[in-house]
Amino acid sequence: MKRSFASILLLTVLTFCGAAQNLSITPVRIPDIEGYHTLKCDFHMHTVFSDGDLWPEFRVKEALSEGLDAIAITDHIEYLPKKAWLGSDRNLSVQIARPVATATGLILIPGAEITRSMPPGHLNAIFVQDANALSKETWRDAVAEARKQGAIIFWNHPGWKGQQPDGVARWYDEHTEILGNGTLWGMEVANHTEWYPQVLAWAREKGLGIMGNSDSHEPISFEFSRRGIAHRPMTLVFVKERSAESIREALLAKRTAVYRENEVIGDSLWLKQIFTHSVAITPGEVATTGRKTVPVTAVNSSDLTYRLERVSPTSVLVFPEELTIPAGQSTVFGVRPSADSLSVNGSVTVVYRVKNMIVAPDRSLEVPLTFRVRIDPK
Amino acid sequence: MKRSFASILLLTVLTFCGAAQNLSITPVRIPDIEGYHTLKCDFHMHTVFSDGDLWPEFRVKEALSEGLDAIAITDHIEYLPKKAWLGSDRNLSVQIARPVATATGLILIPGAEITRSMPPGHLNAIFVQDANALSKETWRDAVAEARKQGAIIFWNHPGWKGQQPDGVARWYDEHTEILGNGTLWGMEVANHTEWYPQVLAWAREKGLGIMGNSDSHEPISFEFSRRGIAHRPMTLVFVKERSAESIREALLAKRTAVYRENEVIGDSLWLKQIFTHSVAITPGEVATTGRKTVPVTAVNSSDLTYRLERVSPTSVLVFPEELTIPAGQSTVFGVRPSADSLSVNGSVTVVYRVKNMIVAPDRSLEVPLTFRVRIDPK
Amino acid sequence: MKRSFASILLLTVLTFCGAAQNLSITPVRIPDIEGYHTLKCDFHMHTVFSDGDLWPEFRVKEALSEGLDAIAITDHIEYLPKKAWLGSDRNLSVQIARPVATATGLILIPGAEITRSMPPGHLNAIFVQDANALSKETWRDAVAEARKQGAIIFWNHPGWKGQQPDGVARWYDEHTEILGNGTLWGMEVANHTEWYPQVLAWAREKGLGIMGNSDSHEPISFEFSRRGIAHRPMTLVFVKERSAESIREALLAKRTAVYRENEVIGDSLWLKQIFTHSVAITPGEVATTGRKTVPVTAVNSSDLTYRLERVSPTSVLVFPEELTIPAGQSTVFGVRPSADSLSVNGSVTVVYRVKNMIVAPDRSLEVPLTFRVRIDPK
Amino acid sequence: MKRSFASILLLTVLTFCGAAQNLSITPVRIPDIEGYHTLKCDFHMHTVFSDGDLWPEFRVKEALSEGLDAIAITDHIEYLPKKAWLGSDRNLSVQIARPVATATGLILIPGAEITRSMPPGHLNAIFVQDANALSKETWRDAVAEARKQGAIIFWNHPGWKGQQPDGVARWYDEHTEILGNGTLWGMEVANHTEWYPQVLAWAREKGLGIMGNSDSHEPISFEFSRRGIAHRPMTLVFVKERSAESIREALLAKRTAVYRENEVIGDSLWLKQIFTHSVAITPGEVATTGRKTVPVTAVNSSDLTYRLERVSPTSVLVFPEELTIPAGQSTVFGVRPSADSLSVNGSVTVVYRVKNMIVAPDRSLEVPLTFRVRIDPK
Repeated sequence: MKRSFASILLLTVLTFCGAAQNLSITPVRIPDIEGYHTLKCDFHMHTVFSDGDLWPEFRVKEALSEGLDAIAITDHIEYLPKKAWLGSDRNLSVQIARPVATATGLILIPGAEITRSMPPGHLNAIFVQDANALSKETWRDAVAEARKQGAIIFWNHPGWKGQQPDGVARWYDEHTEILGNGTLWGMEVANHTEWYPQVLAWAREKGLGIMGNSDSHEPISFEFSRRGIAHRPMTLVFVKERSAESIREALLAKRTAVYRENEVIGDSLWLKQIFTHSVAITPGEVATTGRKTVPVTAVNSSDLTYRLERVSPTSVLVFPEELTIPAGQSTVFGVRPSADSLSVNGSVTVVYRVKNMIVAPDRSLEVPLTFRVRIDPK
Repeated sequence: MKRSFASILLLTVLTFCGAAQNLSITPVRIPDIEGYHTLKCDFHMHTVFSDGDLWPEFRVKEALSEGLDAIAITDHIEYLPKKAWLGSDRNLSVQIARPVATATGLILIPGAEITRSMPPGHLNAIFVQDANALSKETWRDAVAEARKQGAIIFWNHPGWKGQQPDGVARWYDEHTEILGNGTLWGMEVANHTEWYPQVLAWAREKGLGIMGNSDSHEPISFEFSRRGIAHRPMTLVFVKERSAESIREALLAKRTAVYRENEVIGDSLWLKQIFTHSVAITPGEVATTGRKTVPVTAVNSSDLTYRLERVSPTSVLVFPEELTIPAGQSTVFGVRPSADSLSVNGSVTVVYRVKNMIVAPDRSLEVPLTFRVRIDPK
Repeated sequence: MKRSFASILLLTVLTFCGAAQNLSITPVRIPDIEGYHTLKCDFHMHTVFSDGDLWPEFRVKEALSEGLDAIAITDHIEYLPKKAWLGSDRNLSVQIARPVATATGLILIPGAEITRSMPPGHLNAIFVQDANALSKETWRDAVAEARKQGAIIFWNHPGWKGQQPDGVARWYDEHTEILGNGTLWGMEVANHTEWYPQVLAWAREKGLGIMGNSDSHEPISFEFSRRGIAHRPMTLVFVKERSAESIREALLAKRTAVYRENEVIGDSLWLKQIFTHSVAITPGEVATTGRKTVPVTAVNSSDLTYRLERVSPTSVLVFPEELTIPAGQSTVFGVRPSADSLSVNGSVTVVYRVKNMIVAPDRSLEVPLTFRVRIDPK
Repeated sequence: MKRSFASILLLTVLTFCGAAQNLSITPVRIPDIEGYHTLKCDFHMHTVFSDGDLWPEFRVKEALSEGLDAIAITDHIEYLPKKAWLGSDRNLSVQIARPVATATGLILIPGAEITRSMPPGHLNAIFVQDANALSKETWRDAVAEARKQGAIIFWNHPGWKGQQPDGVARWYDEHTEILGNGTLWGMEVANHTEWYPQVLAWAREKGLGIMGNSDSHEPISFEFSRRGIAHRPMTLVFVKERSAESIREALLAKRTAVYRENEVIGDSLWLKQIFTHSVAITPGEVATTGRKTVPVTAVNSSDLTYRLERVSPTSVLVFPEELTIPAGQSTVFGVRPSADSLSVNGSVTVVYRVKNMIVAPDRSLEVPLTFRVRIDPK
């Protein structure tokens, strides 16, 4: 690829355009739900302005190409290994990325990572006004400043072995302190290639928000795609409209879930809706004679491959014990009466567990599927 | 996988259900067009009842799994290498496949391949009544019998090196003969991994129908997928409704196109509509100031990756010379005024050539894209 | 593609050649071990001669294309749903496949599946002389006949839900009976997409042989590849030479392991050798100063992506806690002294657990890696 | 991923280690040839220090991960859009990348792009001593300075539409000038996703060297992999040993070829050896009776999928007209006598054209395959 001198004037908006002057975008097919749009967000990543390897504008282009709606750039406050070349203005990375974000419609949220030893570990502050002001002697002062600026603050990667050597997320008095004074909004349940079941349990106990973010330092295509991981972890935010303000409102209302690899993690309220808006099952009626099998089709319009196992025992109808409904595909399965001489006119509900929709450390979403049933004996 | 004795009673319909009792279906995302449904069909394939390697029921299951709407099983009339074990009843393959097709809704069209040396080479007859009656001494008698049964007859793989040693499709007097007496409906422009530009030219000159079929002998997943070819060649049939009768009506009206690898081949009338129903471009208006670039988004909901090159020269707006709109993805590209101090309020049409939509041996589809334009000088 | 009449004379050997007259072969990169060749075998599959969908010759071609060394065709003795068309000669499937196997060098072992309700469930007999003679009133008579013919007999899919409704492999008195009288050689630890940890435990307790087989009914590319499973399950047999006789000798000596998805299952004796013949680590010496990190490279020439976790605690050198060595690739990792002022001249052994090499239901292989070490204080 | 404070001390060498403290390397399987090692090199790429998006150290890590042996970082001399933040020291990008290259063994060659309008267009200078000194008023002065420093100078992307609006590479007097005075070493035949057949013709006519380079501005995984292009274009350099000096010697001797997508471009001397060191054909003798087909196996140990078509007509043996030997796989094909009653004892040579090994704009490599032959009449 070559960039001509002529393009320098257009650089602000054209930077998002690659060699062939265009950028392909892979949509993230997770559906909207009742009353809310489902925004795909990544609230944790780095650039050359701390210890990342990428120029800030590229973070915008990369997120656009992956179908994201919003990102936060969150360079470290306390760790600036490229200071000798780039200085220490902690607002620069967001400032440089801003024009491209505006021109292309990606929502860019200013952030920073308060990077301290454990406890309390690393905390992200997003919706900050002035990241430079977060450079303080103590973590308490940094957090207080972020709060003063109206930031939303969350604990990053609570189970990271680098700070929790036995690999188990451990809750410290310092976390109780910032939870108690209303400073702590929530935690990352998923970070990069890891996820922390214990943290999901805490979130439920303590009423905290949850996120899943990339914490990317290198290109996403280098960190994830080349290892065979189809997408970065994302925070799904259920918003009233597509704007930074609406994301803020939704975060404060704790309307989030986490999308990592082929899993969605979060409250059953949201997960059930994602499932029902992803999968359409037809026909809604099972009409048969004797023990004749009836084909039923489940059409999955999402990027999730749903893996279901039957929870309820066989009643008048025999449903498959296991069902895989591949992403963007359909599945045809057979349903048949459980005995030879049934005569039924009513409805049947079978309950499946969606193994890759996680609502608690050891529990997956259960979805009831109801069919009208009419069986005539042979 | 294991199949229990109990399942024997259910075999007719359950054969379509795999190990986990379900069958996943990959949709073929080629859109319907104005006034017609676009059926995905393969009118040429073999089973163990001639020189294929597969049981007929599996051909139905395989086609379903690949999102096809209709197939014809077309075993050879004259070539039955497994006769010692399976006999020579040429209707059996379709009869065996029929119950599974009925149970699952796949349209199954009875066919046979009249397999003679060149000229006239191999001819397929579909919509036959009794394939056994096609076993005749001469090819003229076989063709006459097929015609008497109301079959639609087409010339298979006219450019196949096995019968056209120099690899060029050659038209013989015998083809003139069956064209002249109304017996020849059309030809395969594409067969297996080959396609024949010359045959497309003939179809246009002589008003013949065109098809693209797999001519599969082994599993499709073995012949195509494992060689990195995403799908078998298909005949797209533009029908009024999803039925065998409607396919017959559409074939007689020559409403077909060919879908092979990442190409569609056929009349511009159909191809233009497939393009416009696949790709949505927003916004429809380019409003800008000075020479500021405006982002335009093309959303491609089809399985075709469209490869466009600009045909019309730059007028008031500069459009990209080349545009790739990947399958199931979007592309953002920049459009900008061609000079500094333009003042425009009107509309602009840019013409692109869609390189992978082929309307003649050396010509691709041209599509005009029209935008409302409003340019204010800076 | 098309098969010409001329080819009929060559059919016996040419059937293995596809459209383009050639067949591509994907090698299975699992290395030979000390003193033995590692043959890749599948001892359980079906054809149209029982309830499969494929002609026997294709099973040979398919196995060749996947890099296998040997297969057994094991059609059901008692279940012949296509009898109306193909008769009930249970030796035919192997007889038909034999010439292609001979011409192409694939080792073809005659087999049959004695298909009874549980107990004892389904039993495979391979190296049979006459499969028809296995058609007996009682399973005991069938098994006795197989034994009389010198067959090797194993219990198929002991944990299959179709016969073990709670999904747990259960051992019956009938199994004790055939174990006691020396009839039972072993069991399938893996079958199709399932594997049974309990069965691995039994094998170790009772000194039985283990296998992993496909139990394929449809094309392998349809059952596995299209679901994203890279290869069928295989039985690795450690032989003295590449022949049917040598496979028999190795089976009787219980020199087997199982290769499924990205896992190898079996005795640590074999697994350790597969690992050490797959992965080369250089340099063998760590020479450094102060706490300077030294890069170490692990080159993996196999198809297995090894997933390692460190077992031994940090001593004088800090090794990574987790290491992934992708199939056919290399991994570079850093090793560094654990403290600032060490002075060492000796050797260090770090022990890793290879998570995807399974030696017992809950235990993975441990491999010690030894390095010469020379650390100079700064 | 998180980077701890502790790691700052180790940054120099540890930067090449990702999240899990290790880096996977995909080897490029293009074989060494007779007397030379085949190094995989990319002599054209950008970083944040001109108009690229990546920190220089990452260019090293990225190249290592893709199995490259050597890179040149060639930031623009005249185009520094990030000057406001990074200054204009044109030696910095190479200086910053140097320690990681040294620690990991990647060969890093200092370079710069003299970026002028056409003619002469963009010229790369590699093996420069001081890139800052290349910042001159005129291109002639810049080139003279590069030459004074002992640089090797080549013309980048001669067919780039940005500078050759009709898309055809055009040779100007200025190129004759630098060719005549010995300044111009050669040209890029391939750049990014383009290649220029005309430039290959020039190289042969004028005795110039050829290269294929990425000209990457963004991550390789973003520019190539996500578009479905398996690897960046590379310059293959045939060296006596793996060192910068040896690369220089080989370049001066014009021992290079180009590897792009699934093609190798260059002199038949090199290409023939790459083919013969990639593909082993067994057996070397065809011994048969009557017209019996004999299977022959071609084992391809390289990353190139070779596409062959037969050039020589059939003599006593019939060889396949087309042969595809997939990367890292084998192909079995059948060879048979051309008539019934031959009696031969001698040798036969069949010539194939390797369609994806390009030796001139319209010509591919031809390789003769010789077999000992013994045919007995039936």
